[in-house]
Amino acid sequence: MASMAALLVKASSPFYSFPKMQNARFDIEPKLSVSTLHFRKEKKNSQKLRVFCGLIEPDGGRLVQLFAKESQRNERRKEALSMPRVVLSRIDLQWVHVLSEGWASPLRGFMRESEFLQTLHFNSLRLDDGSVVNMSVPIVLAINDEQKHRIGGSSQVALVDSGNNPVAILSNIEIYKHPKEERIARTWGTTAPGLPYVNETITNAGNWLIGGDLEVIEPIKYNDGLDRFRLSPAELRKEFIKRDADAVFAFQLRNPVHNGHALLMTDTHRRLLEMGYKNPVLLLHPLGGYTKADDVPLSWRMKQHEKVLEDGVLDPETTVVAIFPSPMHYAGPTEVQWHAKARINAGANFYIVGRDPAGMGHPVEKRDLYDADHGKKVLSMAPGLERLNILPFKVAAYDKTQRKMAFFDPSRPQDFLFISGTKMRTLAKNRENPPDGFMCPGGWKVLVEYYDSLVSSDNRKLPQSVPA
Amino acid sequence: MASMAALLVKASSPFYSFPKMQNARFDIEPKLSVSTLHFRKEKKNSQKLRVFCGLIEPDGGRLVQLFAKESQRNERRKEALSMPRVVLSRIDLQWVHVLSEGWASPLRGFMRESEFLQTLHFNSLRLDDGSVVNMSVPIVLAINDEQKHRIGGSSQVALVDSGNNPVAILSNIEIYKHPKEERIARTWGTTAPGLPYVNETITNAGNWLIGGDLEVIEPIKYNDGLDRFRLSPAELRKEFIKRDADAVFAFQLRNPVHNGHALLMTDTHRRLLEMGYKNPVLLLHPLGGYTKADDVPLSWRMKQHEKVLEDGVLDPETTVVAIFPSPMHYAGPTEVQWHAKARINAGANFYIVGRDPAGMGHPVEKRDLYDADHGKKVLSMAPGLERLNILPFKVAAYDKTQRKMAFFDPSRPQDFLFISGTKMRTLAKNRENPPDGFMCPGGWKVLVEYYDSLVSSDNRKLPQSVPA
Repeated sequence: MASMAALLVKASSPFYSFPKMQNARFDIEPKLSVSTLHFRKEKKNSQKLRVFCGLIEPDGGRLVQLFAKESQRNERRKEALSMPRVVLSRIDLQWVHVLSEGWASPLRGFMRESEFLQTLHFNSLRLDDGSVVNMSVPIVLAINDEQKHRIGGSSQVALVDSGNNPVAILSNIEIYKHPKEERIARTWGTTAPGLPYVNETITNAGNWLIGGDLEVIEPIKYNDGLDRFRLSPAELRKEFIKRDADAVFAFQLRNPVHNGHALLMTDTHRRLLEMGYKNPVLLLHPLGGYTKADDVPLSWRMKQHEKVLEDGVLDPETTVVAIFPSPMHYAGPTEVQWHAKARINAGANFYIVGRDPAGMGHPVEKRDLYDADHGKKVLSMAPGLERLNILPFKVAAYDKTQRKMAFFDPSRPQDFLFISGTKMRTLAKNRENPPDGFMCPGGWKVLVEYYDSLVSSDNRKLPQSVPA
Repeated sequence: MASMAALLVKASSPFYSFPKMQNARFDIEPKLSVSTLHFRKEKKNSQKLRVFCGLIEPDGGRLVQLFAKESQRNERRKEALSMPRVVLSRIDLQWVHVLSEGWASPLRGFMRESEFLQTLHFNSLRLDDGSVVNMSVPIVLAINDEQKHRIGGSSQVALVDSGNNPVAILSNIEIYKHPKEERIARTWGTTAPGLPYVNETITNAGNWLIGGDLEVIEPIKYNDGLDRFRLSPAELRKEFIKRDADAVFAFQLRNPVHNGHALLMTDTHRRLLEMGYKNPVLLLHPLGGYTKADDVPLSWRMKQHEKVLEDGVLDPETTVVAIFPSPMHYAGPTEVQWHAKARINAGANFYIVGRDPAGMGHPVEKRDLYDADHGKKVLSMAPGLERLNILPFKVAAYDKTQRKMAFFDPSRPQDFLFISGTKMRTLAKNRENPPDGFMCPGGWKVLVEYYDSLVSSDNRKLPQSVPA
């Protein structure tokens, strides 16, 4: 399991607000079934597997898992060979991974047009029974005119990797127009050139989207030494049950962990105990899919997280470290809903949201792309997330009087030093040290090593900086 | 009352689809109260007025009306004089009108930030009781830095017209940032320059929005000879009750009525009778607020509608003609939800939606801004509109074999002539006649007169054309 040595950091936090805490209650479901194949509509499915009690129910009532049965894998591979093929990009493959494990439950494959339109306009999907689940980012697969022509009247396509190996089958397909400009405008709230995910996946993508029911031939692996951290929602739920968690609080991150983060996590743990929970468990959940060029890559972040935990900042008994396989949109208030919703499916009933979640600098203008408070406001009002307890936090900053990270005290602003992600990266690039107490020395060393490796491998050419 | 002479046009319509008809049912509420002042939270308000039985309930359960009591008008005017003032533009005043009569029920004034954000991201508002109402276009009031400074710490402002006369009071105000780019991108799905409503109201607007509770000193009148057509939702509901309507079907339009429209309306009436309704009433509901420069102005459209009805195309017994006071966004699938939702508040439980509703040409690219089918798709899935029966219609075109407008028959496309709004306007500008049977001669004459009036008043300079 992926927990590491840790210590509790003691901190008082008068500005840490828990707006929904008075009403917080634990969503207890008597049983929850995980289908081993497709999401099934039948309420009385005799093949369902009872996995656990006590965690928040996945969206739609059951965790979707879209894997072929092991006994049928070879057959599926053979069938795939006779179908029209769509070659998956690296990011497409990450979405196949996300869909296959049920992070996007109850979604059963790449979106058809009705799901795409609901996502763009309503950030949510209405299910057949009239209930609503959150779904804020389009999970779609683009194809071009030539691919569409090649697919012709086929109702199925094989999704293959860059080596032409079948990865999955998409059935009952629907091909519809890819309204790129509208997708970008409604997802990011801007069409300014330079959005990283747009440049990477949309600008040069085909003019069509293909949706359908996904069946993945075998679980996606990356063979990068980190697959052991890539726990599926079902695996995470098992782990939480094993640990007898009565609350799970998720922390999404794509940056190195500093002591401000740690303060926040340990303080949340303390508060949950105060609220009466007996065994709150932290899901420390770095994002593992596509990130922009100037973010610290996953492998280095994982090294850094390991050091931070070794240096004793978080309690291994109450922490699960795992990788969230989603790519990053940098779509602020729209994307933070996805980040939260996916964690419900993994069993989290508390979600910590920071300042400007999933935000970045405006790609053209000299300002942040999103209002720093919109993320938590939108999240707290989002359809389909009513069951989730949102935990906004006040900014932590370096308290020069205490020589450590602490929650910002507006009565003595002069005592605090704000160290942004950009500032942190610049310090590490320049081999300068941050103030004592900002980050544990082992973790900082990993960051410096990362930037050193870039310089030595690429003659001091650092990846182009995108402000974030 | 605003109904005029009309005749039933007989037409068979094999392609006229009624997808929700099988499940269509009439929403019967035992009673419905209309408060004469503010929307009240109290369930047991002893002052509530029982208005009618049988019509669809307004959003939020009660029709909001935001007028000062007649006995208090002078007092309110005096109070307003001592408050900081915000001068309303023509379009702001139209929104005051819309809000005051409850078209946007349960909204009680210009949006505060939480309503604005929910509108942008979810096209809907969650109410205190957990229910959801549709709200797809931001109804907001912009102010600039200087106005914000002038308002200072005041909790109320007076909204005044261009002559500095107090029109309304906005109380418990909230001032928040006006994220123009994001508002435009999320409302229109594009940020391309040249969107008419954006040019008119957003580009040069202030960097702040001011929300609050609205109280209008007296009902908004325009004194343009058309106020008698400006029936409020409460007045329309009374009229429908008086007529003993058991179904109300609304037809939104911002163009002259041709015989294709008439065919559609009479055919809908026939279908509703077939479904078992005894007395379906048509709400013919031209939009009366801001429209773009090359649309036919309201006064001319009303003259045209009058001629069309005089010429005997619709049955006066079953038709109510009234003006919908909202300005036009031209925001396609986003705006059509607003058009439908507002008509629920006026008592309509059926809404006719055409091809590309509220659409226009892309302001920069040579294509329609929206997919022509997205409007009806989005409308059919929109949160908060589940109670409304959506009636999509197939395209009507000029059937050369019958020499009249008929539903397009795809088995003999060569027999049909499509006459777009642009084509229609061009013909009228050039004093050419459309084919016999396209529009009644009296109605066509009004159109030609309108374009003649432009030419004579402005030396052949026509308003700049925006494709639509």
